[in-house]
Amino acid sequence: MDIDRIIRQMARDAKQAAGVISRCATAQKNQALTNMADLLEQQAETIFQENRKDLKRAGEAGLSRAMVDRLTVTGETIAAMAGGIREVAAYADPVGTMGETRVRPNGLRVSKMRIPLGVIGIIYESRPNVTIDAAGLCLKSGNAVILRGGSEALHSNRALAGIIGQALESVGLPAQAAQVVPMEDRTAINVLLAQEDFVDLIIPRGGEGLIRFVVENSRIPVLKHYKGVCHVFVDHTADLQMAEGISFNAKVQRPGVCNAMETLLVHEQVARDFLPAMARRFESAGVELRGCPKTCAILPGITPATDADWPAEYLDLILAVKVVANMEEAMAHIARYGSNHTEAIITSDYRRAHRFVRDVDASVVLVNASTRFNDGGQLGLGAEMGISTSKLHAFGPMGLEELTTRKFVVLGDGQIRE
Amino acid sequence: MDIDRIIRQMARDAKQAAGVISRCATAQKNQALTNMADLLEQQAETIFQENRKDLKRAGEAGLSRAMVDRLTVTGETIAAMAGGIREVAAYADPVGTMGETRVRPNGLRVSKMRIPLGVIGIIYESRPNVTIDAAGLCLKSGNAVILRGGSEALHSNRALAGIIGQALESVGLPAQAAQVVPMEDRTAINVLLAQEDFVDLIIPRGGEGLIRFVVENSRIPVLKHYKGVCHVFVDHTADLQMAEGISFNAKVQRPGVCNAMETLLVHEQVARDFLPAMARRFESAGVELRGCPKTCAILPGITPATDADWPAEYLDLILAVKVVANMEEAMAHIARYGSNHTEAIITSDYRRAHRFVRDVDASVVLVNASTRFNDGGQLGLGAEMGISTSKLHAFGPMGLEELTTRKFVVLGDGQIRE
Repeated sequence: MDIDRIIRQMARDAKQAAGVISRCATAQKNQALTNMADLLEQQAETIFQENRKDLKRAGEAGLSRAMVDRLTVTGETIAAMAGGIREVAAYADPVGTMGETRVRPNGLRVSKMRIPLGVIGIIYESRPNVTIDAAGLCLKSGNAVILRGGSEALHSNRALAGIIGQALESVGLPAQAAQVVPMEDRTAINVLLAQEDFVDLIIPRGGEGLIRFVVENSRIPVLKHYKGVCHVFVDHTADLQMAEGISFNAKVQRPGVCNAMETLLVHEQVARDFLPAMARRFESAGVELRGCPKTCAILPGITPATDADWPAEYLDLILAVKVVANMEEAMAHIARYGSNHTEAIITSDYRRAHRFVRDVDASVVLVNASTRFNDGGQLGLGAEMGISTSKLHAFGPMGLEELTTRKFVVLGDGQIRE
Repeated sequence: MDIDRIIRQMARDAKQAAGVISRCATAQKNQALTNMADLLEQQAETIFQENRKDLKRAGEAGLSRAMVDRLTVTGETIAAMAGGIREVAAYADPVGTMGETRVRPNGLRVSKMRIPLGVIGIIYESRPNVTIDAAGLCLKSGNAVILRGGSEALHSNRALAGIIGQALESVGLPAQAAQVVPMEDRTAINVLLAQEDFVDLIIPRGGEGLIRFVVENSRIPVLKHYKGVCHVFVDHTADLQMAEGISFNAKVQRPGVCNAMETLLVHEQVARDFLPAMARRFESAGVELRGCPKTCAILPGITPATDADWPAEYLDLILAVKVVANMEEAMAHIARYGSNHTEAIITSDYRRAHRFVRDVDASVVLVNASTRFNDGGQLGLGAEMGISTSKLHAFGPMGLEELTTRKFVVLGDGQIRE
């Protein structure tokens, strides 16, 4: 079948390009990135033109306003993409870095060197800027990449792929190091997920449906998170003003993202002091509250929460609120309904902070800070490729380092094993 | 179906036990390990008795001498198992350790804490000592484990599982933290590989057939290596006496293991000086050589190598030998036939050593040392759970640290995201 043949050839080409790109000098990679940023700006008109084709189709297909928004490439989008790529160029190159050397009793010197993973497949929805961001991060970390965006963005993504290819070739690197899957047919994804001889890692980015599809069909390791059901637990020892500021930020600052708070847990000793003012502030921001019976008793008139609310990822101005008898109940609730993504405690008690940090099973655990900080840039990793709630390889935001692995380097002077 | 129900319940129990064991104190885990070692010695007779049942069946089934040897538990086996477990008790506990803290411009303090992976499934063949070694490493690293040994060792493994359970319960830990699959039916493996809600990692240990079966059927991440086709490249700049010592050790010291050399690559500038003496030494140790045409021209009378020899993992006293025109040819041969496992160069030239280390894609790359050092104990990791040639999560020998992952810990004093 034709799709089969095309995808297999792309994967094979990517593997070969990965060998070249894994060994190329940092300066060469940085020059390619800088050229990519320049080309994006120079060829903005072409990108707009191709993007309009996607938008026209989206209009005909009756896509939602939100989807059309995400699909639209503007001058600002171009500037953000170019700026992001220039930032990636400025990051330190992880490839080839080595940590401490251990000296063995027989004199062997053992260390580890960071190396690229090889070929990374990214499967994503809608936003064309992912094409540029992902290509930039993969290139900088010495990996080849195969990009499979949503079919609704096909024209835009192909135009961006053209620019990425030009940037690579402008410094003598193979354009096959970053390829966009050129067809809409979903079969292409299945074929890609079967190329375990050529592709080393798959990263799906999008809704839970897409991610489950990828996990179930992939023979290649997958790094992903399904969803972010993040909690803030306001302990009875919390500074309540701080708790209010953090809770508000965690819910309202950008409600549509995975590290936004979905459920607020409040220690019952402070619930009566904390909740009324907090609720007023939420209501003034248009947040709909859904409370447990104890919450409803304190905040009469709010919607009672149902069983469907506790595991919900609203991604919207909706918040479930639960009053808990103690920290154990809060932690049990998080263990049951959390998604191992981001969990925060607000407390002024050392032992409780220590225990929460130690025992809560999430990729990022915070004390006295907003859940919104689970983000590669915010945590100092630079740009990120996504967040992993899988524990294998990477847990939490994935930056350049997480797109690499380490091999052992052993330097001897004739050692043999006895 | 009954197997289905039993395995699912084991997986569910393991997940629950993992929560307990992930949080328990180092001293408690060490006490359980020490008790396990003591119980092994005290109950040696029971183990022998159960082992004799397996041996009787093996005799009836006509298992090979080698397989019966691996299956046999002797007083020495018991002593080795007990000694291994006491060593694991003495290792530093990785769980809870934290690396450097990064301070962000807004004052957030960001670090990473090592945590267990959760539930690990080990699928292995024959040797009953793996049951004890794997249980010890998983317990020390805070993971629960489900062990599925070969059906030929079922009685022995059940007896060992009894001891592991007693040791856990002797310190108040749940016996479900280390369970042996109690039935022979291979369906049990398929059911285990589908428990992605409860099992976090699968490690298969055994022949390539078993490993391929596991990879193809698992919905859980798998860490594995298929085989070790390891090379030693003797550069023209090598100290030839050192090259002889290392090559001999890499092939002969223990030929049946994955880090033994399978192919010797020799730079043609030194082939005539190096090969005759090397060949005599190999022949005196009973090693059969299979040479490329250039090798056969230097060593008349040896078997010519065929296309089947270059990718072969002999695990035996057989060695393929190839004379190469230069280092590029050696590295191209390794890239084509190597298994990303262990590769060594013998050289006295700095630039060539540097280039080999940087460009050869293997979990362990050595300069002037034997391939036999790709081993957790030899590289300073302590005991190991196996060797990974997958690049995700771990690449190379997996010790206690590789059985853990890291979560982000973020300490703030009220930070919110702007």
